[in-house]
Parts: sequence; C-alpha cells; structure tokens
Amino acid sequence: MTQPSNADTLPPTARTQVKRVPQRGNYDRQQVYDILDEGLVCHLGFVASGQPFVIPTAYGRLEDTLYIHGSPASRMLKTLDQGVEICLTVTLLDGLVLARSAFHHSMNYRSVVLFGTATRVNAPDEKLTALKAFTDHVVPGRWAEVRPPNPQELTGTLVLALPIAEASAKVRTGPPIDAPEDYALPIWAGEIPLRLQAEGPVTDSRCQPNLTVPSYAENYGR
Amino acid sequence: MTQPSNADTLPPTARTQVKRVPQRGNYDRQQVYDILDEGLVCHLGFVASGQPFVIPTAYGRLEDTLYIHGSPASRMLKTLDQGVEICLTVTLLDGLVLARSAFHHSMNYRSVVLFGTATRVNAPDEKLTALKAFTDHVVPGRWAEVRPPNPQELTGTLVLALPIAEASAKVRTGPPIDAPEDYALPIWAGEIPLRLQAEGPVTDSRCQPNLTVPSYAENYGR
Repeated sequence: MTQPSNADTLPPTARTQVKRVPQRGNYDRQQVYDILDEGLVCHLGFVASGQPFVIPTAYGRLEDTLYIHGSPASRMLKTLDQGVEICLTVTLLDGLVLARSAFHHSMNYRSVVLFGTATRVNAPDEKLTALKAFTDHVVPGRWAEVRPPNPQELTGTLVLALPIAEASAKVRTGPPIDAPEDYALPIWAGEIPLRLQAEGPVTDSRCQPNLTVPSYAENYGR
Repeated sequence: MTQPSNADTLPPTARTQVKRVPQRGNYDRQQVYDILDEGLVCHLGFVASGQPFVIPTAYGRLEDTLYIHGSPASRMLKTLDQGVEICLTVTLLDGLVLARSAFHHSMNYRSVVLFGTATRVNAPDEKLTALKAFTDHVVPGRWAEVRPPNPQELTGTLVLALPIAEASAKVRTGPPIDAPEDYALPIWAGEIPLRLQAEGPVTDSRCQPNLTVPSYAENYGR
C-alpha cells in the first residue's frame, strides 16, 4: 500500500513514459516497490549481438536497489556485467476482463518496467546482504534458518545491482469498458480474478525425521 | 501432456540452445505448445534505438503460429511490424524450492523462449481466426458468445503473426538438490507448489438482469 512517508515520485523519462493508455501509468515509487515486492519472477531483457533476449529470473529488492544473481558462467549475467542496457519487467496478473464485445476483452494487471544498467557487487558483506534480501523476498524468514553461503559459494555467485531510478508502473483494475450501445446486450460480462496461490508444502523425502514444516511454508502467501 | 502423434522436435539453434543447466532444456514441439497454451501473458522483447524493451502482453496460438494484437498506435506493435527481431518468453511458475543451504534455493517452472520476426495479418478472415484463437486461448468458449468485431474494430486492431519455429522450453521440477553433506542438517526442506488460481467471477454491475454466469467463468481453470 502507498505510504505517504515514501510518496516519492520517479521522474518519467522518454523510456518509462507510459504511452498506450497513459492514465494507467504511475510513477509513484512506493507503488513500484509494492509490485516488485509482490512479484517473484522478473523478465530481464537485454541485447547481445543485436538480438534481444528475455530471460525469466528471480530477484530481490533492498531499498532503491534491485539485485539479481546467478552463476558467473551464465551468459546473461556475463553480458549484463558488461554494463549493457537492461529492461526488467515484473507483471502481476490480477484477473481476466470479459466484455460484451470481443474487442473490449482485457486483463487486470499491475506491472513495472525498469530501465538501467547493472553493476557487480564485489564486497562480500554487501553480497551477503543482497543474497539475504533475495532469499527473504521469495520466502520471508527463510534466510535465518538455512545454512548461509560458504566462501566458495559466495565466490561462485555473481550478484548484480540495478538502481531503481528509471521505472514506471502500469495498472488496470475494474470491470470491462464496453461501447455504450453494447451494454444492452444480453451477454454476461465481468471479471475473473486470478491469484498466484500456494498449495500445501511438500516435504523433501530426504529430510531428517521429525522436522516441523515452518509456518512460513505452511502458510505461504496467507 | 506430450502426445506421441505430435512428437515433433524444434531443431535447436545458437539462440535457443539452453546453455545453463542444459538438462533442463527441451525442444519438443508439443511441450512448447503446452506451455504456451497454459500461459496467459507473454513477455515480448525487442530492440528500439539500441534499447531493449520487455512488454507484457496477451497472445493466442493456432497450430504453429503465435498471434499478438493491439492498437495500430502501439509503439511496440509499430516497431514489431517493421520486422525487427523478437524474443518472446512465457513463464509458468510452479513452485518454490527450499533447500537446506541458501545457495541451493531454486524455483520450479516451465518456460518457453521463442525467437523470430512477426508479419502483419492483413486478410480479414485470417484476422478474425486469429482473434478467435486469441479470445478462446484466454477464456475457452468465450468467442462464441460475444459480439464479434465489427469492420471498424477489425481495422482498429493490428494482428501480428510469429512462427513457432525457433523455440525452446526449459523446465525444472522436483525437490531441492543440496550438497551431499547438507542432507544431515536439521533444516526443513521441500517445495511450496504455486498455482495461478481463479476466484469466483465478479459480475459487471452494468450487466442486464437475470444473466447466468457462464460455466467457463464460474469454473475457470478447473
């Protein structure tokens, strides 16, 4: 939810200005953070040899920095590590919008598009902080209970930081908007809300006996 | 599910070959179709003025063609209509994978990455067929009940076709894979399955009275 104390605005740029249906555009920093924090996977776009690539990957946020990570052998991370332009998009699909006309069918969603270049995180303590943000973004509370990275794993993880400075949100909510004359049609119209829902956790068969399922796994997302 | 009668293979190219964790890569045409058909939103990547853009958009599939559509005024569609290279990615997030070590946390997912260039669909009947595929992809059965596009709406919709020829799927399933010595740790590990779930449909307050909610809306995804 928007917190007045963080009611900062990200100044729109030529890249982030929402052109199609501009009333759906939003440059409120807190709104951008809320969408990033609720999402689990981003789609990361970059250009290599003139060719666009869009790769799904997990991420974490710490204040105004977004972190991604992976193997130093990753083609994507090696490319991003060279400072190429990135477009990182997170989309939350909130529902299907069924109008009376085929033409006005739509979807309710919240999305963020973030532009920038990444820099490599080298300092081991910042790297650890980023990885904690990463783990706790996906499963809040998990970091405190797991075996932390050892020096070899820390070396074997490339962490990149992307400033959340040039970004915009785009949001559609609400019922279908039909052409005025179509509201008289005897066609059902409305929304089908969608939600990414967790099902009951599946304990690894190789777990030590008598371990309790942690409440953050038992009640994930609730 | 893979159907033997369609057990065609998409020949891997330099762009589609899965490099990181190659055993997760898959070039089975039916598997690619299944992921595309289950997804609702793709992330479409393209380059404009050297800058990557990644835009979420809906899509439809008809045999070996993927259709996208939108307003002829859309910056994205105008760019794609010029035949620029596209990378289109669909990701289904199936679960969170909680390992004993922070390092081995992962996600279960199925994704498709599709490369190619789009061509504009001009013939009105192919355009209608594409829009039907589009609507019925999102809500199976919906097209037959709605007011079809009139000539003005058909003109006001730009439909682009992308051949499903150069694509790969990437899939991770199953429990966490920890380092051998970590299995002795008294840390709960397992999967939290995730599913995009429909909630009860919300009837538009401007609907004509006494309309029944269609079963495809009432039981969406079930």
